Amino acid sequence: ALTANSDVDDWWPHTICEGGFLDPSEYYVVCANILGSCYGTTGPMSENPETGEPYYDRFPRLTIRDIVRAHRQLADHLGISRIHTIIGPSVGGFQAIEWATEEPERFDRLVLLGTAEKATPWTIAIDETQRMIIKADRTYGEHRADAGADGLSAARALALLTYRGPEGYNITQQNRPGMEETIPGLPTNHRACTYQRHQGEKLVKRFDAYAYMTILDSFDTHDIGRGRGGVEQALKRLAPIRTMVIGLSGDLVFPPEDMKALAAKIPGAEYREITSSFGHDGFLVEHDQLNRTVSPFLK
Amino acid sequence: ALTANSDVDDWWPHTICEGGFLDPSEYYVVCANILGSCYGTTGPMSENPETGEPYYDRFPRLTIRDIVRAHRQLADHLGISRIHTIIGPSVGGFQAIEWATEEPERFDRLVLLGTAEKATPWTIAIDETQRMIIKADRTYGEHRADAGADGLSAARALALLTYRGPEGYNITQQNRPGMEETIPGLPTNHRACTYQRHQGEKLVKRFDAYAYMTILDSFDTHDIGRGRGGVEQALKRLAPIRTMVIGLSGDLVFPPEDMKALAAKIPGAEYREITSSFGHDGFLVEHDQLNRTVSPFLK
Repeated sequence: ALTANSDVDDWWPHTICEGGFLDPSEYYVVCANILGSCYGTTGPMSENPETGEPYYDRFPRLTIRDIVRAHRQLADHLGISRIHTIIGPSVGGFQAIEWATEEPERFDRLVLLGTAEKATPWTIAIDETQRMIIKADRTYGEHRADAGADGLSAARALALLTYRGPEGYNITQQNRPGMEETIPGLPTNHRACTYQRHQGEKLVKRFDAYAYMTILDSFDTHDIGRGRGGVEQALKRLAPIRTMVIGLSGDLVFPPEDMKALAAKIPGAEYREITSSFGHDGFLVEHDQLNRTVSPFLK
Repeated sequence: ALTANSDVDDWWPHTICEGGFLDPSEYYVVCANILGSCYGTTGPMSENPETGEPYYDRFPRLTIRDIVRAHRQLADHLGISRIHTIIGPSVGGFQAIEWATEEPERFDRLVLLGTAEKATPWTIAIDETQRMIIKADRTYGEHRADAGADGLSAARALALLTYRGPEGYNITQQNRPGMEETIPGLPTNHRACTYQRHQGEKLVKRFDAYAYMTILDSFDTHDIGRGRGGVEQALKRLAPIRTMVIGLSGDLVFPPEDMKALAAKIPGAEYREITSSFGHDGFLVEHDQLNRTVSPFLK
């Protein structure tokens, strides 16, 4: 996913465990960092050989295809020719569907979860808004790792709105009894307010604005149909793969209707829907449903 | 509405006209500016008598009740004792329901459109994110009218995401044929990107960050139940008024389920739903449905 690292168990709990669909007693699980991210592969904080200092905002623009090319090199290097299943949620799904389209013969199965075959105007508008937010912090562009930190924090707060949606917030962020009366003079005391600020601060501690911008840019160029005669043509290449497409009820970023439509365009694909009050974040929360849905498919 | 002025015809077209529900040959229409806004009433750009310069970020925090108190003074000053209908969309609806709760005997009818009886954690989280965005622009706080302009622009872009939703963007902001191939190196060329930036820039030309923050704060303290024994008790006061509650399909800010639940709590209220691909912005777009729904109710 967008800000995830290569330790699946760290960001996607209840998957790598007994009964999880990534049960390590049954499968050998490989998750690679994203090119451009701050978690170990080359990214904006890597040294720019031309200047001897980090790239910062001069890191080259990447596409999802560039990221997939790095994954392919890793697989080749590890001597993995055939892959049992490729699975990705969100921008991880962008990589999964792009790679499967590029090399359909490499995979037995493909699982796409809360994702898309092409960035939509809606998701692009969300990302552009995040770019506007980060650039509104005039420290963005300065040559230090924490440049644009306030902008990054606010961009993350926006991203979370789209990940959780109305129901998720209204379930978890109600004010505690008695809080209301103290609020008229201090609206930012609301529990929903402290939650937004906390989430922003948390990301800033583990991520940087340059890596975030790099991945946002790659997100927006995602289009498995580019140079392949369009999306519908490209999806036909997936015919040899057994594909499952999973939508999340109330997902604002990748609405379930869009996921269902995607499944209908992939030869032989199954569509399943996970019910969640947490929208797109449902893929992190609804592990029981997810394990029940994905585990049998992998067998 | 949040950034609207007192010229209804300017921001809510097809309402003040023959066949519109605010047909001026049938009704005398009064729309007042919001206290704290930049459109004529006292706001952050008014002179602070203590300093001799504008208030800027030292303008007092307001509640929706303060704004309504100003409306009441205006009505009293104009000699209007009894009001045929009070109608408000969005934050205008906050004012309408607050005023009607305070003085139920003053109104024959109340029309609530895409609004709420109390700010929810979800809407508060949206507003807090906008505050974070504006503050990330470190010019916010400076003593000039355009302080925080980049932050305001980005906050507006976020607000529009919530006003329009996925369907609205995907209908209107698809790239034109041929644009796609030029995009890999320049993701921000997408039509959805230029739209977001354009909307931000447009608001900055007519609004200021201090007024915007003042209204966001008042939004988040909205709660007709405060000091009145809670929302359910407060809503019982509306019994003498004929009330219509209108939800908008796909409204992300005020989901139609919430509007329906509000109607169920108001004695004798009718619930109606407007179908729109434009979510919350449907109240500005679906004028035919709106006129067909509201006009008969006013008669």
